[in-house]
Amino acid sequence: MGAGITLRAALHCTALILPPLLLHFYNKTMSSSESHEPSNSESATISKKAAKKEAAKLEKLRRKQEAAALSSTASNLSVNDDTDPLAANYGDIPLVELQSKTPVDVNDWTRVETLEKSMKDQHVLIRGRVQTIRPVGKKMSFLVIRENGYTVQCLVQTQPDLVSIQMVKFAAALSRESIVDVEGHVSVPDTLVKAATQQEVEVQVRKLYCVSRAVPNLPINIEDAARSEVEIEKAIQEGEQFVRVNQDTRLNFRVLDLRTPANQGIFRIQSQIGNVFRQFLLSEGFVEIHTPKLIAGSSEGGAAVFRLDYKGQPACLAQSPQLHKQMSICGDLGRVFEIGPVFRAEDSYTHRHLCEFTGLDVEMEIKKHYFEVMDIVERLFIALFDSLNHNCKKELEAVRKQYPFEPLKYLRQTLRLTYEEGVQMLKDVGIEIEPFGDLNTEAERKLGQLVSEKYGTEFYILYRYPLAIRPFYTMPCYDNPAEYSNSFDVFIRGEEIISGAQRIHKPDLLEKRAEACGIDVKTISTYIDSFRYGAPLHGGFGVGLERVVMLFCGLNNIRKTSLYPRDPLRLAP
Amino acid sequence: MGAGITLRAALHCTALILPPLLLHFYNKTMSSSESHEPSNSESATISKKAAKKEAAKLEKLRRKQEAAALSSTASNLSVNDDTDPLAANYGDIPLVELQSKTPVDVNDWTRVETLEKSMKDQHVLIRGRVQTIRPVGKKMSFLVIRENGYTVQCLVQTQPDLVSIQMVKFAAALSRESIVDVEGHVSVPDTLVKAATQQEVEVQVRKLYCVSRAVPNLPINIEDAARSEVEIEKAIQEGEQFVRVNQDTRLNFRVLDLRTPANQGIFRIQSQIGNVFRQFLLSEGFVEIHTPKLIAGSSEGGAAVFRLDYKGQPACLAQSPQLHKQMSICGDLGRVFEIGPVFRAEDSYTHRHLCEFTGLDVEMEIKKHYFEVMDIVERLFIALFDSLNHNCKKELEAVRKQYPFEPLKYLRQTLRLTYEEGVQMLKDVGIEIEPFGDLNTEAERKLGQLVSEKYGTEFYILYRYPLAIRPFYTMPCYDNPAEYSNSFDVFIRGEEIISGAQRIHKPDLLEKRAEACGIDVKTISTYIDSFRYGAPLHGGFGVGLERVVMLFCGLNNIRKTSLYPRDPLRLAP
Repeated sequence: MGAGITLRAALHCTALILPPLLLHFYNKTMSSSESHEPSNSESATISKKAAKKEAAKLEKLRRKQEAAALSSTASNLSVNDDTDPLAANYGDIPLVELQSKTPVDVNDWTRVETLEKSMKDQHVLIRGRVQTIRPVGKKMSFLVIRENGYTVQCLVQTQPDLVSIQMVKFAAALSRESIVDVEGHVSVPDTLVKAATQQEVEVQVRKLYCVSRAVPNLPINIEDAARSEVEIEKAIQEGEQFVRVNQDTRLNFRVLDLRTPANQGIFRIQSQIGNVFRQFLLSEGFVEIHTPKLIAGSSEGGAAVFRLDYKGQPACLAQSPQLHKQMSICGDLGRVFEIGPVFRAEDSYTHRHLCEFTGLDVEMEIKKHYFEVMDIVERLFIALFDSLNHNCKKELEAVRKQYPFEPLKYLRQTLRLTYEEGVQMLKDVGIEIEPFGDLNTEAERKLGQLVSEKYGTEFYILYRYPLAIRPFYTMPCYDNPAEYSNSFDVFIRGEEIISGAQRIHKPDLLEKRAEACGIDVKTISTYIDSFRYGAPLHGGFGVGLERVVMLFCGLNNIRKTSLYPRDPLRLAP
Repeated sequence: MGAGITLRAALHCTALILPPLLLHFYNKTMSSSESHEPSNSESATISKKAAKKEAAKLEKLRRKQEAAALSSTASNLSVNDDTDPLAANYGDIPLVELQSKTPVDVNDWTRVETLEKSMKDQHVLIRGRVQTIRPVGKKMSFLVIRENGYTVQCLVQTQPDLVSIQMVKFAAALSRESIVDVEGHVSVPDTLVKAATQQEVEVQVRKLYCVSRAVPNLPINIEDAARSEVEIEKAIQEGEQFVRVNQDTRLNFRVLDLRTPANQGIFRIQSQIGNVFRQFLLSEGFVEIHTPKLIAGSSEGGAAVFRLDYKGQPACLAQSPQLHKQMSICGDLGRVFEIGPVFRAEDSYTHRHLCEFTGLDVEMEIKKHYFEVMDIVERLFIALFDSLNHNCKKELEAVRKQYPFEPLKYLRQTLRLTYEEGVQMLKDVGIEIEPFGDLNTEAERKLGQLVSEKYGTEFYILYRYPLAIRPFYTMPCYDNPAEYSNSFDVFIRGEEIISGAQRIHKPDLLEKRAEACGIDVKTISTYIDSFRYGAPLHGGFGVGLERVVMLFCGLNNIRKTSLYPRDPLRLAP
């Protein structure tokens, strides 16, 4: 955006506490409006040198911030002067008081969320972050205090024997995002408070203590980070400009970025998905397991594996719990699932690949047919979507506000198409797919669009995939074992989120298929041996948790749904 | 045990199908009765050379087994001869029928668990493993079929136009642990069937198909693996001998070992612990998070870290989610928990250390005092113990039968002692502890015993630990910050299972403490920076899932409660 922060942007962001250093900082680290989201190719071309340079820049900035923070703290202490007889009513809480000196009743604090007009005149103690500070002259200052996404306006105003002018000064000099304890009583203003979620009430402050101070110049302004693209575009049309925070800056300062309403929503939705996933499976008799991530050999072959030394033995990080979850079926656990990290050393710079993500993995005995697995997938995901729509309304709304999306269209009875049918649908609109090859991302998207138009669903299953493009342990089809397999993928909004299949339970066939796929059978001998002692027919599937969140919410980048994403260029924070 | 398998052992194990090869195998791989459980020092002295030798031996054995399996399959096929007009009623199901040829209604199968005398004369189809085979002459054979821990006796007896003599022969020649489909009708015998869990019924077999064959000579006999030490000792006193399966053999053939009732119980208990843990925390407003296991720097310092190359950058595996869960608190997630793998490259050969285990990690904002964290610990664990005792009766009984233990003694109001009080209790019985040093395992055990005697509980909290023995991020005490800390450990049956504390939320103090602990602050700068933007007071704790299972069930080795344990010598299966 060059050097220009317009008046409107400044008013929204940091109007009253914006020091020259922060202006300088904006110029250095905020992206221009042209680079809101780095495209895939852009990410790919960021060299390590550039990354290092960026790191050095940030380090330099940090040191500057610290210096600024120190001087700021010093000046704050001087605010709270000894000549004020009401000095005990405000100030920074000394460390010793925060070191578990006094056990307290946590119910002494009122949650901001619960503040409402029926509490008029009640004395309350609240703890939260200073979201905004608006001094009005020397005798009054408005603070908006945020706790758990809810906000309330607090008024610090001079009053004889209660609130000193020094206390108002102390309030006005607080840094945004600092954490404070506010004591006061609830009042009901004549007009709604538009700047807060608790619009019917205000707190008349009597005491104000700072628990934890933020540096005065934040590397990301929460309001900037929370602003929707729609809002920014509108401002641009009106000849104004907002600060745009790009993806890399967000991730570099993730602890600030996480405080936006959208991110608070995203990670609560993620938690809820894990919960529904588990509760559904437990109610169906599944057992939760934990398989090792450190393994000998490579779990599924290929180059995309992180290798390490394990006490003198070569080892690698599991690319999936595939082998061990199947072994658990051989160990008669019947139906198992696991939620855990999955490691892929792929050089993928797309919007939907990570080097580490959270796998939701399922494996189960079947009686005769892999449709039994697909039945579980269907019921599980319908339950999941229903639950999200029902129980995460507030969170979805928070995400939608920043990143607008349409609710996912899905049917009560999930659509199932064969791979051949899918390929035919693409052919019908002039897109040729190699019949035993895989669908690329573009073809998947297109098929998703065609399916949505024809069947009115953005959630469907494609099954009977070509054998050649599935992992070695996939069971070939009974009627065309050379070309097709008992496998399926599941799509949300035209992107793959689940891969599943019947597995080979016969060790001789398993060995043959592993060899055919170029895998050194010796490296997976304990796995193959597991099938020699009577192996149940079984199948299963794997889901990427971050992808489910991303696609349910129609987000455009998986880095938005990973708490601390790992890609080929990012190993921090 | 030398070469001697007594008649009684043989009858119990493999009486009727024990070929010379298996006898040879027993002699080679089963441990002697003197080495039921290798002691810690024994484990430690197993050299890599010995491990290699063992691996070679197993490989040789495997090849022998395969040869035997092949010849066995061949002979089975010949059993099912074409001259039998009833040949369609039995036999091995060909692979093509198992490749999802025909979708089925899974409700066509009756679960063994549900078989009871009210079902007399009903036609049933069951699927399960052949647990035992007992031919009686040429015209009759008893099979005990096991499904999900429940067993039923099935009778295959010649009947004109229904069951041929060849079918009885086929049944008798099945290998144990093979999976079969049995069709027949339920009968109610005059006397209870002692050999099965469903004692009031029997199945009169009409059709018998083998779904998946086990090799005839299993490396572990399930009955041997399931036998309790008490039973074995009793037999020895009576001048007899049972096969003992040692821990390493069990783990080498984990898929067989897992099929014992005790192990089926252990891993269902483990699943239940995870479930209660999560449900409790979710109900208290916690958010489940997933933090990266691949990190730059080393999470908690020290040498016990697995290092690897991450796309050209030095990386390591997280020794705990400590830093990232704290950062999530700085990101305003409020209260978080994680269940995930934790990696420790320690050279520990004890009964309670693993190189990879499942961490249950919690972090939460506090208002003023780390007792708020201890309150959560207390309520969580009381809820957990209550739930296990109430909902896992069958599983606990299965564990107890093989590994006898007394139910855990715990109070409704958890005992809290200061570290100093604990040290004094030990001093009172003549055990001197360096006042600012740590308790060793022996001292912990002894203190557990003293506490149990004095207070009648095997679950208690020791708090206010010396600062010097806690991690750098631990908050020092307000009244003696140089020597004590706001931290605690929790013990079950005299062993530590939880470590927790208030954390330092001030970046300057955090840096100072990290430096004092010899940590290069530069390697954790993103972590320390997280506290510069207003950091909530917070605390948390970590639990080892496998330890909870082990200690609740009074087991003697953590390898019993890890599905596929990893220790310095074991990276497989």
